[in-house]
Order: sequence, then C-alpha cells, then structure tokens
Amino acid sequence: MSRPAPLSGFPEWTPAERIVELEILDTVRRIFQLHGFASIETRAVEPLEQMLRKGEIDKEVYVLRRLHADVDDADAGLGLHFDLTVPFARYVVQNAGHLDFPFRRYQIQKVWRGERPQEGRFREFTQADIDIVGRDSLGLHHEVEVALVMAEVFRALPCPPAVILVNNRTLAEGFFLGAGASDPQAALRAIDKLDKIGVDKVLALLRSEAGLTDQGAAACLSLADIRTEDTAFVGQVRALGVEHPLLDEGLAELAAVVGAAYARMPGAVVADLKIARGLDYYTGTVYETQLVGYESFGSVCSGGRYDSLARDDRSSYPGVGISLGLTRLMSVLVGRGLVVADRSVPTCVVVAVSDEASRQLSDEVAAALRSRGISTEVAPTADKFGKQIRYADRRGIPFVWFIDAQGQHSVKDIRTGEQADADPQSWSPAARDLTPHVHLTDSTVASQPATQSGTQATKETAS
Amino acid sequence: MSRPAPLSGFPEWTPAERIVELEILDTVRRIFQLHGFASIETRAVEPLEQMLRKGEIDKEVYVLRRLHADVDDADAGLGLHFDLTVPFARYVVQNAGHLDFPFRRYQIQKVWRGERPQEGRFREFTQADIDIVGRDSLGLHHEVEVALVMAEVFRALPCPPAVILVNNRTLAEGFFLGAGASDPQAALRAIDKLDKIGVDKVLALLRSEAGLTDQGAAACLSLADIRTEDTAFVGQVRALGVEHPLLDEGLAELAAVVGAAYARMPGAVVADLKIARGLDYYTGTVYETQLVGYESFGSVCSGGRYDSLARDDRSSYPGVGISLGLTRLMSVLVGRGLVVADRSVPTCVVVAVSDEASRQLSDEVAAALRSRGISTEVAPTADKFGKQIRYADRRGIPFVWFIDAQGQHSVKDIRTGEQADADPQSWSPAARDLTPHVHLTDSTVASQPATQSGTQATKETAS
Repeated sequence: MSRPAPLSGFPEWTPAERIVELEILDTVRRIFQLHGFASIETRAVEPLEQMLRKGEIDKEVYVLRRLHADVDDADAGLGLHFDLTVPFARYVVQNAGHLDFPFRRYQIQKVWRGERPQEGRFREFTQADIDIVGRDSLGLHHEVEVALVMAEVFRALPCPPAVILVNNRTLAEGFFLGAGASDPQAALRAIDKLDKIGVDKVLALLRSEAGLTDQGAAACLSLADIRTEDTAFVGQVRALGVEHPLLDEGLAELAAVVGAAYARMPGAVVADLKIARGLDYYTGTVYETQLVGYESFGSVCSGGRYDSLARDDRSSYPGVGISLGLTRLMSVLVGRGLVVADRSVPTCVVVAVSDEASRQLSDEVAAALRSRGISTEVAPTADKFGKQIRYADRRGIPFVWFIDAQGQHSVKDIRTGEQADADPQSWSPAARDLTPHVHLTDSTVASQPATQSGTQATKETAS
Repeated sequence: MSRPAPLSGFPEWTPAERIVELEILDTVRRIFQLHGFASIETRAVEPLEQMLRKGEIDKEVYVLRRLHADVDDADAGLGLHFDLTVPFARYVVQNAGHLDFPFRRYQIQKVWRGERPQEGRFREFTQADIDIVGRDSLGLHHEVEVALVMAEVFRALPCPPAVILVNNRTLAEGFFLGAGASDPQAALRAIDKLDKIGVDKVLALLRSEAGLTDQGAAACLSLADIRTEDTAFVGQVRALGVEHPLLDEGLAELAAVVGAAYARMPGAVVADLKIARGLDYYTGTVYETQLVGYESFGSVCSGGRYDSLARDDRSSYPGVGISLGLTRLMSVLVGRGLVVADRSVPTCVVVAVSDEASRQLSDEVAAALRSRGISTEVAPTADKFGKQIRYADRRGIPFVWFIDAQGQHSVKDIRTGEQADADPQSWSPAARDLTPHVHLTDSTVASQPATQSGTQATKETAS
C-alpha cells in the first residue's frame, strides 16, 4: 500500500484530537439530556424528492448507486442527508402516531454536502441538533429555550466565548415590504451577502433585485446594522421610520425571545438584525452563533423556527431547532491549537510485564484495577522496564505498575518519578488522573479577547 | 406530505428503543476504554480501489455521485465503507508516523452494504470494533485479549448469554491440505456453507471443488463438528489422523488462545472448528459470536487476525480485531421485545406551569434541579394540572413539581400518587429514578435457556 492521502473536505482526527471531540460530544449530550431532550438517529439516506422539496441546495447532495445495480434498483433516488432537520421532519410525520407532542429530540450525526471544501466548510461533518416540534401549535417560549440550551452548552465547553445572534424572518420581510421592496426574498438574500460582497454591492442588489429606492435600500442597510443585547433594538428599528403589519408582528416576536433570554442569561443571546440564514424553510426566529475572535469561521450553531416543514393530512408540525456544527467547532478549537488533551489514550495505568511466563500476574492486576473503574493496559511485550515506561510516557499515561521477583507490587508516577508500594485491590489514582483532561492552551488565553466570560480560560473538564 | 414509509434495510428506532441502544453504546464504550482502547472515527467514504483490494464484496458497495457533478469530478470513485477494518487499515498506514504501536483503537460507526435486507441483515448498520495493530509484529496474547474484552461487554449488557466461537485459518488450511484437498480455499468456502446448505451438499462441494476423496471429505466434516470449551479439541483433531505442518502450527496457536481464555473466563470463548468467516483478509485466528437461543440471527460479533491488510514501504502492520454488530444485536433485543426502557425520555421531573405569566418561576425551579444533575423539563403549556401530569405519565417521567399560589413547592411521584413539600435547592430523586432504566423483560427470562450466566436476567443498569 503506498501511503494514502487525506481526502479534502473529509476531516479525520488523531486519537488525542478525538478525545477533545468526545469531551465536546459528552458535554453536549449531558446538557441536552438535562433539558429533557430524547436522542434519536435517522438513517443517513433520504429519497431525493423529499430532500429537494425545500431549500436550494440540490446541487450539493450526494446520490447513491449500488456498484452492480440493476436498472430498476430499489435504491435509485436515494441521497445522503445534507442536514438533520429535513430527515427529522420526515421522521416526525412518519411516526406521528407513536410520538408524544411537543416532541423534544436531540440528534448527533454526520451529514454530507458536495460543496467545495474551504476553511470551516466540509463535505462530511457532524451536527448536534435539538428541536422541539408541536402538533398544530408550538409556544414561542420554546424559541427562547433552545437558544439558552445552546448557550449553556457553549459555557460548559472548553472554547472561546460564544454569542448567539437572533433575528426574525417576519420582522425582516415586513421591514423590506414597508421600505418598498417588490421582492422581499431578494432583499433577504442580498443582506445575507453583506460579509461576502460588502456594502456597495449589497446596495446595488437591493436596488436591482429587490426593487428598492436609494432611500429604501439605505434603510435596509441601517436595519442590518442593529445589534443589541436586550430589547433596545425595537426603538432603533422604529427610529428608521418604516412601517408594516408584518414588521410589528416580527418585532413583537423577537422582543419576546430576546427579552426572555436577556432576563435569564444576559449577553448570551443577542438581537442582530442582519442574520438571514440561507435555507428557506425558516418562517420566524433565526439563529447564528459567533465564536468571539473567530468570526471568520462562520456560524458554529444555527437554526430557527419552521412552521411548514412537516405536515400530514390531519396536522401541521411547527418546530424550532438549533444545530451545533461540531466539525467546524473542532476545526477552530483543534485546528487552531486552542484546545488539547493531555493523553492520546483513555489509559491511566500500564501494568509492566517482567517476562512472558508471568504475563498472567499482570493480567490479574489489570483486572483488579479495571473492576474499580481504572482504565488499565498490560504492557504488550516483556521489554526492559525503561522501554515499558516509554510506552506509557509516549501516550501520556501517568502510571506504571510493577511486580517484582518477590511478588511485591508498586506503582510509579512517571511524571514525578515517585514510586510507592501498592495493592491492586485498593490503590486508586487521584481523581483528576483517572481520565484524560481537555483544556484550553496558553495561546488561547493569550489570544482571547477580554470578555465577561473570561473565566473560561481556566476551565478544565473531565472527558 | 403524505405519510413517508420506512426504507427496507435502513432501520430507525423509536426514542424508547434508542435509550436501549444508548445504554448498549455506553456500556461498550466504557469497557473498551477500561481496557485502554482509544476512540477514532474514519470518514464514511473510501476510494473504491482501496475497498475492493481485499474481500469479495464489491457488489455490495454504495458508490457516491454528486447530483450535479462535472465529468471529471473529484469524488468520482468514492464509496461508502462496508466495514470499519479496511478504513482502519488505511488510517494506520496514512498516519503511521504519528501513531504509537501497538496501536489499540475502538471505532463505533455506521457502515453500508447494498445487500438484500433480511432478518439480522441491513443496508445501514452500526458496528463497534476494537483492533490492536502492531508494527512488523504483534503478540498472540492480543488474540486472547480482544475476545475477552468482548466477552466482558456481553456479560455487562442486558442480553441473553453470548458464546464467542474461535477457530484458526492456518489450522483449517493445514487440515484440508493434510486430508488431500487440492484447493483448501474451496474447502473453507464449502464448510462455511454448512448451516445454509446442509451436510450432503457440503460433502459434494468438498469432492467437486476442493478435490477431496470421500474419506478426506468425511474427515473435514468431522473436523467441523469439533467444539470444546478448553484445549480438548487438540486431541480430537489428532484422533482424525490427518497430518500437516500448517495443521501443527494452527493447532498450537488455537490452543494458546483457547487455553489462556479458558483460564481467565471459562465458557466465554470456545473452540469451534467449523467457523470460517467470509472475508478473505483473515490469516489466523477467527471469531464469531452466538447469542444462546438466538443462533438463527447469525453472529453478533466477529473478527480475526489479519497479517497482510496494511503495509507501507517500510513496515507491515499485523492486526487483530473483533467487531460487535450493534444493529443486529438491537434487532434481537428490541425487535424480539427482550429488552425495554422504562421511559422514552431522559427526563426525571416535569415542572408544572400554573399560568403563562408565572412560567419564569417554573424555569427557575428547573434550572435549580438541572444544576444538581437532575434532568428536568418545564411543562409546555399552562394546561389543567391533570393534563400536565398526563404529559409526564405518557413519557414515563416519574415526578411532577408544583408551585402553588402561595409559592409553596411540592413534588408528586405520579406512580404512587405521593406528594410532599420540596425545596428546589435540595430535593433529589432516589438514585434509580434519576435516569431511564433498561432491563430484560419477563419474556426473556422465561424463554432463556438455563446457563451459567443466568444472573443476567435480573441485571439492571443505568442508562
């Protein structure tokens, strides 16, 4: 085998990096479950016509074909899912008779998009979603709830501070209509390009595509500039002098969401009126999330309210959801060296082997330690002890266990060199040595902007 | 949306079934990590030529195509992986410079095969693998180790007793050659079909395809009949009177593996000389696993030693691995109703809402409970309390929390009806009510054959 090359857009992690990812996954899952979200998984494939019903990303879908398929293959027309929301909507309608509503679920799976890979953008990546779906109705307070759950996740993760930005599609549509847009969707798409093409080109699009006057286009740009931690945005929007019934409706919704979030976790969820979201199934509140200092990577957690994604003959299933982009987050945290694990393995103890004939003794020590929850390996070969210690050292394993010729047991902390007699039935490591630790590096602390959440830099959590 | 239908071969679980699956996954991961296996994941796709280099299952691979691909698409020639061993071998060679050997990893991911779906056989399914790979050499004791780790997993799972069956390819090849086979691979393939086509047809194949005489074919069938818990199989093979140097070598290897396993966990790992395994990358020890009473579902955990799967210009990377078929196991445990969860959600407490204006009070109670690790939801609507209790009851949630008009807090165990005053800062549920429980059903206990592992029927573990 010649050395295989990585595939662009399909990231893989080293064992030590994977320990960081597992720490994130465990934290995410723990907090989702604390809030009563139930886990589901959906199959990786969906019928194409289902996936392309909504959204404009048909060109990004991977289609499947069996290598030796018949012409009339049963799998014809299947593609890999490009997100977890569309499959979830399908799952809800398919199983509506067996689910209890409102249905709260989390879903952590890989998704695939045939996009051109670039920084923060992958062809295969993992998403961690929460959604709450009602039958025929769903309270607005759930739109506060999903954002605060994600804010809690970010506060618990070893990562730079995150800000969840929130906007409202109805607000935007009402404003664009009130400002004189003939095509409010075109105005939304233009505003969505602000970061990519700049003010002048967006102004031009607002005039040419959305049918706005110079004054109307300028008002839309002013709207996009508004960002407030509390409900102060309402007065700032009103001051722009644009009026429309949908604007009133959207302002009231966004004020309710931002006001309630501000009361419970000030600074975590911020109104930002330029947020648009590309996928067209959102109908109200929309979310994006910036990592402070790493905004150029794009949103690490996005979502929104969707009222028309799922329906059957009897009911509609309005929902709200938010999706953490785990792979993008990893590409910041690990790709930029902000977060590291102190081991590449879960192992806490290596039991040395004096000679192959007595391997059984080492196996027994390992079994005794494992029975008390201590991750243990037995050395693979009866090499010189120096080599067995290096086996542990290279992997960051803190302890090596020895049995001498007289049957006396001792354990060595290879970081300090301290060695002490020990009993396999009772010895335990310090709690913080039991499992690998994931922590922010000094460079993160140094490069991190000063914020209210500065305490994060010293946080350290067990994997 | 008309009601979507399930896709044959792509199973999905209900939230309550998923709790069973999570319990299994957590147990598997815990035990893998206790033995010092590090987690990795590989991308879902591999270059086709890589995947088809070994094995004969090219017809089962799903090939990818971007929906609007160019003719010279970079993704041309990518397929979904059909197992985790071939991608792992690729990962090892690709990253050999950064890995420490022997490298011990576990990998829990979905794989895809375009096979005709049937009982226990799926197009998308999850595997949980452990492998140990050395550089240029790998001790035989690792072949005992991976089998015993899986035996420990099965003893910890809520499932019927499992027996890991082990054989050795060198032993089989040597025996077939010694018995006069001109094509020992054909003999192996014939023996592998015993369960499917029966003794007479296998005898015919041994003569026609493997070039054996009546007497030689009969000896091969006798070999396939041998099954012993300890090393007694050695004498039974010798008694068949066949001789060959490879047979001696294989007998010594298998005796070492089975003898060491018997000493450490008698009855868990059994020599069974008809085990063959279809994939042709195994070179020595091979494993299959039967669930006692559910043998017809096929092996739930298989693997073996592979000496030639991975190599680069400088080294070979011999390995041994064993793979738990999680989806097949789920199809037995959940599909047959042997195992159930007592809730469909992680939630322990629902905080009732008296009216929407006071939802904030309920949110505060929920936050206090969650801060102490108690999974809590706030009722979605301020319905009559009877309806809020039913919300909890339908999901199996044990407790509902009330705040009365005077601000007095109380918690009701809705299983018993008991209600008592409670303080959100200090109240805790009984430990066993904190999380969902997964347990064997009475029907399992009743239908389960009497075995040494009968204590499993009363086992109950936290999810």
